[in-house]
Amino acid sequence: MATNGKPKYKVIGTRPIRHDGVDKVTGRAKYGADIRLTGLLHGVVLRSPHAHAKIKKIDTSLAEAVPGVRAVVTSADLPHQGDRMVELGEGSVNMKHLSANVLAHDKVLYKGHAVAAVAADNVHIAEEAAKLIVVEYELLPPVLDVLEAMRPDAPILNDDVRTDAMGNAVADKPTNIARQIIFEKGDLQAGFKAADVVLEREFRTATVHQGYIEPHNATVLWNANGKVTLWMSTQGIFTARQQTAELMRIPVSDVKVIPMEIGGGFGGKISVYLPPVAAALSRKSGRPVKLIMDRSHVFEATGPTPASYIKIKLGVTRDGKITAGDAYLAYEAGAFPGSPIGPGCMCVFSCYDFPNARVEGYDVCVNKPRSNAYRAPGSTNAAFAIESVIDEICGKLKIDAADFRLLNAAKEGVRRVDGPVYSRIGMVETVEAIKNSEHYQSPLTGPNRGRGIASGYWFNIGLKSAVTATVNNNGTVSLIEGSTDIGGSRTSIAMQLAETLGITAEEVSPAVVDTDSVGYTDVTGGSRVTFATGIAAVEAAKDIQRQFVERAAGLWGVDASTVQYEDGGVSGPDGKRMTFQEMAEKIPETGGPVVGNGTSSKANQAGAFGTHCVDVEVDPDTGKVQILRYTVAQDVGTAIHPSYVEGQMQGGVVQGIGWALNEEYWYDDKGAMRNATYLDYRIPTCYDVPMIETILVEVPDPQHPFGVRGVGEVPICPPPAAIANAIAAAIGVHLKQLPMSPPRVMEAIWENTSKVK
Amino acid sequence: MATNGKPKYKVIGTRPIRHDGVDKVTGRAKYGADIRLTGLLHGVVLRSPHAHAKIKKIDTSLAEAVPGVRAVVTSADLPHQGDRMVELGEGSVNMKHLSANVLAHDKVLYKGHAVAAVAADNVHIAEEAAKLIVVEYELLPPVLDVLEAMRPDAPILNDDVRTDAMGNAVADKPTNIARQIIFEKGDLQAGFKAADVVLEREFRTATVHQGYIEPHNATVLWNANGKVTLWMSTQGIFTARQQTAELMRIPVSDVKVIPMEIGGGFGGKISVYLPPVAAALSRKSGRPVKLIMDRSHVFEATGPTPASYIKIKLGVTRDGKITAGDAYLAYEAGAFPGSPIGPGCMCVFSCYDFPNARVEGYDVCVNKPRSNAYRAPGSTNAAFAIESVIDEICGKLKIDAADFRLLNAAKEGVRRVDGPVYSRIGMVETVEAIKNSEHYQSPLTGPNRGRGIASGYWFNIGLKSAVTATVNNNGTVSLIEGSTDIGGSRTSIAMQLAETLGITAEEVSPAVVDTDSVGYTDVTGGSRVTFATGIAAVEAAKDIQRQFVERAAGLWGVDASTVQYEDGGVSGPDGKRMTFQEMAEKIPETGGPVVGNGTSSKANQAGAFGTHCVDVEVDPDTGKVQILRYTVAQDVGTAIHPSYVEGQMQGGVVQGIGWALNEEYWYDDKGAMRNATYLDYRIPTCYDVPMIETILVEVPDPQHPFGVRGVGEVPICPPPAAIANAIAAAIGVHLKQLPMSPPRVMEAIWENTSKVK
Repeated sequence: MATNGKPKYKVIGTRPIRHDGVDKVTGRAKYGADIRLTGLLHGVVLRSPHAHAKIKKIDTSLAEAVPGVRAVVTSADLPHQGDRMVELGEGSVNMKHLSANVLAHDKVLYKGHAVAAVAADNVHIAEEAAKLIVVEYELLPPVLDVLEAMRPDAPILNDDVRTDAMGNAVADKPTNIARQIIFEKGDLQAGFKAADVVLEREFRTATVHQGYIEPHNATVLWNANGKVTLWMSTQGIFTARQQTAELMRIPVSDVKVIPMEIGGGFGGKISVYLPPVAAALSRKSGRPVKLIMDRSHVFEATGPTPASYIKIKLGVTRDGKITAGDAYLAYEAGAFPGSPIGPGCMCVFSCYDFPNARVEGYDVCVNKPRSNAYRAPGSTNAAFAIESVIDEICGKLKIDAADFRLLNAAKEGVRRVDGPVYSRIGMVETVEAIKNSEHYQSPLTGPNRGRGIASGYWFNIGLKSAVTATVNNNGTVSLIEGSTDIGGSRTSIAMQLAETLGITAEEVSPAVVDTDSVGYTDVTGGSRVTFATGIAAVEAAKDIQRQFVERAAGLWGVDASTVQYEDGGVSGPDGKRMTFQEMAEKIPETGGPVVGNGTSSKANQAGAFGTHCVDVEVDPDTGKVQILRYTVAQDVGTAIHPSYVEGQMQGGVVQGIGWALNEEYWYDDKGAMRNATYLDYRIPTCYDVPMIETILVEVPDPQHPFGVRGVGEVPICPPPAAIANAIAAAIGVHLKQLPMSPPRVMEAIWENTSKVK
Repeated sequence: MATNGKPKYKVIGTRPIRHDGVDKVTGRAKYGADIRLTGLLHGVVLRSPHAHAKIKKIDTSLAEAVPGVRAVVTSADLPHQGDRMVELGEGSVNMKHLSANVLAHDKVLYKGHAVAAVAADNVHIAEEAAKLIVVEYELLPPVLDVLEAMRPDAPILNDDVRTDAMGNAVADKPTNIARQIIFEKGDLQAGFKAADVVLEREFRTATVHQGYIEPHNATVLWNANGKVTLWMSTQGIFTARQQTAELMRIPVSDVKVIPMEIGGGFGGKISVYLPPVAAALSRKSGRPVKLIMDRSHVFEATGPTPASYIKIKLGVTRDGKITAGDAYLAYEAGAFPGSPIGPGCMCVFSCYDFPNARVEGYDVCVNKPRSNAYRAPGSTNAAFAIESVIDEICGKLKIDAADFRLLNAAKEGVRRVDGPVYSRIGMVETVEAIKNSEHYQSPLTGPNRGRGIASGYWFNIGLKSAVTATVNNNGTVSLIEGSTDIGGSRTSIAMQLAETLGITAEEVSPAVVDTDSVGYTDVTGGSRVTFATGIAAVEAAKDIQRQFVERAAGLWGVDASTVQYEDGGVSGPDGKRMTFQEMAEKIPETGGPVVGNGTSSKANQAGAFGTHCVDVEVDPDTGKVQILRYTVAQDVGTAIHPSYVEGQMQGGVVQGIGWALNEEYWYDDKGAMRNATYLDYRIPTCYDVPMIETILVEVPDPQHPFGVRGVGEVPICPPPAAIANAIAAAIGVHLKQLPMSPPRVMEAIWENTSKVK
């Protein structure tokens, strides 16, 4: 973006058409369901009808006898894992749990838990055969709520989960508490003593799903030489490779993951579900096997983000300075340990700078699907709580909500409660952007209407990426990368290569390739790709620059030290000059192919902040909340492709609106999800949201050569709080439970009316 | 290979199972015919029934009206080329001619010449529709023989071919002579004057086909954004990309070639035939289009190697020293200029060192398919002639044929007639190997039996290659390359990488990838891949070594200059040591992915020699020649994978036996090939050949780090001459025309018998 006068960049900040655009709008793009292989078998996974039960016996003999059935597998066909923790890109995973999630071992822990699978000549035979598998269950009572699951008398899911009340890893008997986190800073008691107002509030958030349109899929060929090829939709080809290899206990180099296009992930397509099952079926049948989930399986067995209980106690002086904060967070891990309680604890107080804090967090098993990452995992839950409390305090102190945030905003040099010290961040700038926005400045009139603001934080990650770029003789560049492209990253990476070389985005042809064809690259997640894979692309471009400088020096017969790469070409002594295109044409005569490699490994990000402003109107008769206007101000570092940045901000907000108003897993008392379809699980449609207005605040991240910040996650954090605050402004009550669906809003209205009376 | 005591290498010289072996023997390997795409159309090419005719008019309206037909194309759908010569990897090509070969412009020049093409919902509709295309021809007389085509009154194929008798490029009127070559050395007249014996003989070789089992295929998707994806069987993905781009006049970077497995090429899968036709059909229909030739199309429209006329005059002293040689070679180019007359002229005298020589060559158009490269193109024709003459002279002078060759053999420092000076070569060593072989030493007894020997030469090429290798954390390496694998080169390249890194061949996983994913790599041809792509692999390994040295230095806290990569690991001061595997495990903690790039561009090869010995038995009643025993001694430089080297030697010999005894295009007087099936075009079967014995002579090529020499081509050169010489030993007559089929052998027997009478 041009800030003053001449643009700083030629490519960065422009909006070229995405390289994969035509393929996607014409239906050419190939997704996992499009794979067709000779001899392909179709598989079906048999899933538990019970939320909690022991598996006494599985008899697959009737299924195996069905003509056309080629293989039936259960957990007995997966290798024994022992007690192994394996580092899988985004954290350490207990392989026994991951394996038991893929195919239930001795217990089923949620309705929809995979129990067995059939591969057959077609999907109809597989479905019929799956029905003939006889599973003897011994039913156990389910526990479906995080606080209930923490009670001493709660039904216990996993015998090997033993965290005692002090957070010690091994208690004397099994519990549902998998992990306790405590962060402390300053003197909490003194902090509260210094406060003029102390407010303590409890919040609840629901189990919600990432809601990607494309279901999980995997096609696996276990070849006769033991080499496994896996075609799938995944956020991380190398992570999928490693998980599959570890689950099957074969070397990673025996697995090749070929990425298909991905129809949405949002964090939910990092863990593997189907690949090991398809692999076991393929190994047994000797044929390639394809598995695709249906929508109910996606809801019942993948995703979701944890429901949570959060209690916040905040102390503030009468002039609005926060003096102390105490947070208690309990997140539902689902069937196996692993909720994003860590990030929740890291993020809860991260927008603000105050001296005394304590954060206590719990990861708690319940009879729901194993929790997974979902866009800024853990942070949205926390933001709902803290930003609601702040809003209520602002109301009590009659301080403008934006001014309160400016007064307390975290800045460069501030230490987060969990340790790290911020480098250059843009919290202040996003609040100022909202405060100065036409939206915030304009009056909101009319009955039952209210305006709310809220901020949010996501720390963003760096991790490892690799790209390889080869120069074609016609002056174009082919770029290969290992980052699967969910939100336009083919283009945002290509643009960074183009900018560095001084060519156009269209002259770069990016491709996402398989795990055998590119260097190790971590998942597309954590808002890391445009940052880290972008750095790798810049490095690859510099590698090309170096080679061109050397060749130009050779052509001109001068020393390479007298040649520079600048302005899209090489310059030498006495005004010597050749453009990138001219150098590319000379590749055949100056040596071998020009191939540039680039990697990124050490760079980390400064974190992203956003502040949102929303106007709502509450229907006093139905409790339905209509979003009238919505503005996002977000520190995006440097927007490489502003359209995609805006798209990420808008998409995050829409999902946040879903959390806020409608989305929830609706369980009956037996633990069966009763709304596992898109008819009954209500995500926002275009009728529910206005055009989301975006303000791109550009505070470059000093860790990136162009100042890139991850932008994909933080926009989901503020919406539930901002909307809750807007509803409070409209009806006078802060709702404390998500979703703020019409029945809950009506209850709040009635409660408030009766109070007023 | 171990020469004395401890083996020099750990991996090189061993015989690991090829990486693609299981896929190929289990039917998993994907060839061009295996491609299935959504919306795929099937195409059929309409071909000329005439060998020579003007096209007056093409009416495609009836075909276009057939339900299910989606596109019909003729040459009008190909871009105008003008008079353009384009450098296409293995030489400069006239684009107008190449385009007219792909779809005939105003004339058809051979039976089977493509005239139009149809794409339809299935191949049956396409076939029916193609029959409805009305082509009005004006018939012209065909010319099918190289010498007849050179006559002033011959029918002329191409109006723009105008080489006069003096070899000038532009004569005043069109001719069929496309090129004249003259190489001279020393004083020819003085040389013949110094000779005691001067022998002049004329030879003829037939039109023969490369005989690859897999027919040509191409599937093309011309995408809505103008990007073209091409799946095909090809010897060179980048050459196919460039040809297709040039023929369609679009940028090379708009074409992506995805290599399918290749079922044989032998030089015949470098030129493109189907891709531009499929591209034009796809552009017109908006759908992917697949074209596959049937066998008759393969014979009638692809391949072949030129039939030729060769006259050799050789002067030799009575003690066996060659004093002068004069060669006249006329090769059939087929429909358009471009026979391998150049290599023929380069190779004809290249096994020998004598002072006075003249070589005159002609490239001549005839009404046969456009000639293409076929294993040591041009050299086998020449070797048949020169090696037969030498044998006859040896007989006259009563000099042992091996001794004669040793006396005259070319050596390091000798200048070839066309200019280059040999570096270290192994001609002498191959003759010695045959001379000392058990085969040559053993007596051959029995009636109608004879033994012959012959030598041959192929210069081998270098050109450009690129590979990229990435290290997996488990100590394996993924290697990607642009050289399509015809003869096991995945493994021979992987072995060179493994040797350099000190790991095993199995720890390297090689893959041939598309043109967007690897640096420019020239064709798999000219016996260059194991040499040049091997160098690139060694360079990539050194790049990895460098990175490991740096990281080890970092881990140990020492200066990188004190660390060496040796014996499969890094060694530092004070006995510090980590293996490759240990370093690989440390990749995540020491930085980003470890990716090595390597290229080869400047290295060229020293050339390869082979000397063959064959025993035959001639059936005096039928003229059938049975190969009793066959031994090849060949300078293979350093045999990377001896089994594949032996396989190349054996395969080359079997094809040479085909040339020698059976293979020929059999034309009627209208220019129609009458034996365009494998029932009638007789290639050798396992009943026709004994196990070919191989002697690997290893004279390392100093241009390659391990001494690799290309081995694939030279073994086809000596067989026709060796067999002719063996037949002469059996029946007393040197046959001078290929193939030496039973009728010709019978004629020779009768002629000889009548002479004797």
